[in-house]
Amino acid sequence: MTTQQVLIAGDWRHADASRTFQAQSPLTGEALAPKFPTSKWSDCHEALEAAAGAFEALRSVTPDAIATFLEGYADRIERRSDEICAAAHAETALPLAPRLSAGELPRTTGQLRQAAAAARSGDWSRPVIDTAANIRTQFAGIGPVAVFGPNNFPLAFGSVSGGDFAAAIAAGNPVIAKAHPLHPETTRLLAEEAHQAATEAGLPPATVQLLYDLDHADGERLVQDARLAAVAFTGSKRGGLALKEAADAAGTPIYLELGSVNPVAVLPGALRERGDEIAAELAGSCLMGTGQFCTNPGLVLVESGADADAFMTSLTSAFGAAPNGTLFSSSGRDGLASAIDDLRSAGAEVLTGGGAVDGAPASYQNTVLRADGATFLGSPQALQAEAFGNATLVVVTESTAQSVDVIRALEGNLTGCVYSAKDGSDEAAYSSIEPPLRQRVGRLLNDQMPTGVAVSPAMNHGGPYPATAHPGFTAVGLPGSMARFAMLQCYDQVRPQRLPEGLRDENPRETWRQVDGRWTQESIN
Amino acid sequence: MTTQQVLIAGDWRHADASRTFQAQSPLTGEALAPKFPTSKWSDCHEALEAAAGAFEALRSVTPDAIATFLEGYADRIERRSDEICAAAHAETALPLAPRLSAGELPRTTGQLRQAAAAARSGDWSRPVIDTAANIRTQFAGIGPVAVFGPNNFPLAFGSVSGGDFAAAIAAGNPVIAKAHPLHPETTRLLAEEAHQAATEAGLPPATVQLLYDLDHADGERLVQDARLAAVAFTGSKRGGLALKEAADAAGTPIYLELGSVNPVAVLPGALRERGDEIAAELAGSCLMGTGQFCTNPGLVLVESGADADAFMTSLTSAFGAAPNGTLFSSSGRDGLASAIDDLRSAGAEVLTGGGAVDGAPASYQNTVLRADGATFLGSPQALQAEAFGNATLVVVTESTAQSVDVIRALEGNLTGCVYSAKDGSDEAAYSSIEPPLRQRVGRLLNDQMPTGVAVSPAMNHGGPYPATAHPGFTAVGLPGSMARFAMLQCYDQVRPQRLPEGLRDENPRETWRQVDGRWTQESIN
Repeated sequence: MTTQQVLIAGDWRHADASRTFQAQSPLTGEALAPKFPTSKWSDCHEALEAAAGAFEALRSVTPDAIATFLEGYADRIERRSDEICAAAHAETALPLAPRLSAGELPRTTGQLRQAAAAARSGDWSRPVIDTAANIRTQFAGIGPVAVFGPNNFPLAFGSVSGGDFAAAIAAGNPVIAKAHPLHPETTRLLAEEAHQAATEAGLPPATVQLLYDLDHADGERLVQDARLAAVAFTGSKRGGLALKEAADAAGTPIYLELGSVNPVAVLPGALRERGDEIAAELAGSCLMGTGQFCTNPGLVLVESGADADAFMTSLTSAFGAAPNGTLFSSSGRDGLASAIDDLRSAGAEVLTGGGAVDGAPASYQNTVLRADGATFLGSPQALQAEAFGNATLVVVTESTAQSVDVIRALEGNLTGCVYSAKDGSDEAAYSSIEPPLRQRVGRLLNDQMPTGVAVSPAMNHGGPYPATAHPGFTAVGLPGSMARFAMLQCYDQVRPQRLPEGLRDENPRETWRQVDGRWTQESIN
Repeated sequence: MTTQQVLIAGDWRHADASRTFQAQSPLTGEALAPKFPTSKWSDCHEALEAAAGAFEALRSVTPDAIATFLEGYADRIERRSDEICAAAHAETALPLAPRLSAGELPRTTGQLRQAAAAARSGDWSRPVIDTAANIRTQFAGIGPVAVFGPNNFPLAFGSVSGGDFAAAIAAGNPVIAKAHPLHPETTRLLAEEAHQAATEAGLPPATVQLLYDLDHADGERLVQDARLAAVAFTGSKRGGLALKEAADAAGTPIYLELGSVNPVAVLPGALRERGDEIAAELAGSCLMGTGQFCTNPGLVLVESGADADAFMTSLTSAFGAAPNGTLFSSSGRDGLASAIDDLRSAGAEVLTGGGAVDGAPASYQNTVLRADGATFLGSPQALQAEAFGNATLVVVTESTAQSVDVIRALEGNLTGCVYSAKDGSDEAAYSSIEPPLRQRVGRLLNDQMPTGVAVSPAMNHGGPYPATAHPGFTAVGLPGSMARFAMLQCYDQVRPQRLPEGLRDENPRETWRQVDGRWTQESIN
């Protein structure tokens, strides 16, 4: 069996490998055919050296060429979609349709095309011009970016195809992609298309590079290297925080997207009015993709009473009736089982599920747990630990005031939802719950589950630590997500012909610019 | 002698002090009269508790009330300007006029009024609205902010009066100010006015709090406390990096402004054309405020030859002829002497100065050092260490290519300047030098020294690590500097009456908002 090649400095080449690994079928547990290398540091060194050169070369590449690359890459992904989706299905067990072929793949190509449009318009660079003082500032590319992709969206958050990749490239940065080792073949196929599209668009050869796997120590060395300008990591809290510590020590900006329990509060009037309906909606949201979403609702808050009891009966029965899905790996299954054991040890009781599924190496029973408010408040850290997969914890409080206390005990999360009565009877409770919840989440929803993350300029897929590493940035939504991979560059009395295109008096791209306090697409006269 | 009181939770009260300290006159070395307390942790704890409450209360305070506070505070500072400037002069030896009374004080009140205008307009919150998807996002206050002020601008960067304070408050956050221990009385007078103005404007009592001094361990505990949302620190690299390590470990955003050598490249044609003129300008910039500016030009780059020799003769003679200023303290003098010794050990030679000034406890001779390019490239870390004060190092390279190598060896800086010939003969050299310099500095200047930092919306007083902790933020310029103290808050399907004012359809403040991709001040129909 041959070992697949890494993509460094524009060439597919044999890795300097310390060992090899294979992906496994989540359905059968069997190893999948190709072998992939775990790179030694020398591969990282060469990729960094090439990326530094590519970044300098990208300074003289037009936004149109970058956009052409992103669009050409999207076209190529569509032309090879059957093969890419088949590989992703084999490696992740995510359904071919609609999830991969009709959901994630179009989302991926849509993001790439939105990034292309953002590069062309220049709006992401947010020029600010003070004509009287002749000071002009814009955001510009930050330098080589390392992207560590997660296990749960092999295409749309993939290291060489997803939102971080598209945002970093559109801002003029080369990317060193580190594949997730659960779906290396999917990543390799995508990187082939990215490389071809980059070559066709005339981008520097090292604009897109791919490594499959690194030892942890080399990952930490990579994010500390002076040639690297920024890092994006989506994945587990443990892995992300280790990388953050390394990057922080070197002063390298690192953007994380870690675990989140995404609290959902269902207020008493809503429980009374439409508890069954909300339970069904919640079950659908929790079990979609076997619960392996960053925005999966892992903590539900209700006030005790007959309506809450009925709601939990509905929820438990929906979880029990739904097929147990397949997780990404047997180690994911073990992680979920262990997290559920920890919740139980901290005082949560299992209402349904809570065990393995015979004969399925990567399956676990759909699980609902329950804890009362006082129990939660006794062990808030343990009871808000994420159980990544098809499980959720319902916290039953004795009052709105106790619900507020529970929310105050929460760490930062990506999302927070409040379901309230249509008749207005929950307004007082909403007013109590919203302020502490608002400050702890990046996105606040009303009467809707958080699992859908629209690729909208107004989206915030972010939130306070430890959901992410900085509450001022979003990982989804263009052009906002590009701000992570940009630095602020001021030009003070710089001679006109030396200014970058976007800061000159003339504005042929009709970029939105803030000129003397007014946003305008016009040129300066 | 009484010990001055701290301001906690709206009351001037006796500190829980571990010890006391006094400021010293830089001119005479004598202790100045009032005693100030070094607070124990219990003071920090009470300030944090009060700040957390104040932040919740600030959510229902209008932007107009915050603006009224900032403007009232500015008025009060002007009414007490003689006393404030006298205290600052006694504690820092900065000239009363023009520096303090006609320079720094008007800059301070101007910043407060610009922050008030920013709070009123709401432009800083940068609303983004997607009407079709009904997703709406804006920046909002992040929570309690700790501001650690520097020694060098007791008013305009002061912990309870400067740019960080104004930006944090205008964004709706309470501030816990930590005075610089070299000018506690100045800070106390300012805090008195701030407290009065806050009371008059009806702000929560703990919106402005003041501690004078903390043990390092308590400073680190403060920035790690879960009740604190963000930190701003301006000062020494050593102190700043210790706080950063603590804040990073807790996931608290920290904005630093540390040392910077602010490279100035004088290209061959400019040296030939107007070397003497540039030398005079450089000497003025280097010696202003006895060189104690964040943007002081500490590293000058010229190519060897007769013009460079003449330039250095002019520069050396200007440094020698100028009076030796007074530094902020004898420990500052010792720090400068030690930094200059380190530069000499690394191979720099002293052209003028390089010694203490008899009978002046806080003075050091105006100093010019020289190193050739090869020497610099042999010890780039040691030779780019900041010597804070009236000293500068001229690096003489053998070619433009070697100048480029020197620039590539530089760490992140706040500013970079290039002086070039007016006749166009330096364009090729500029094209070589600009790309590596651009990526290493926050603000690039042409034909102008960096010491002036205009309070313009287009200013960037920031730069790559280690000049600051993140290259995407500015510490000067409104409303841009407020972004440091804000979190992104998305509202997804939130009912209209529950939206914050700035995200509703109607837009009575005429805030600039990005609605469906267009920036507009109009309401949504």
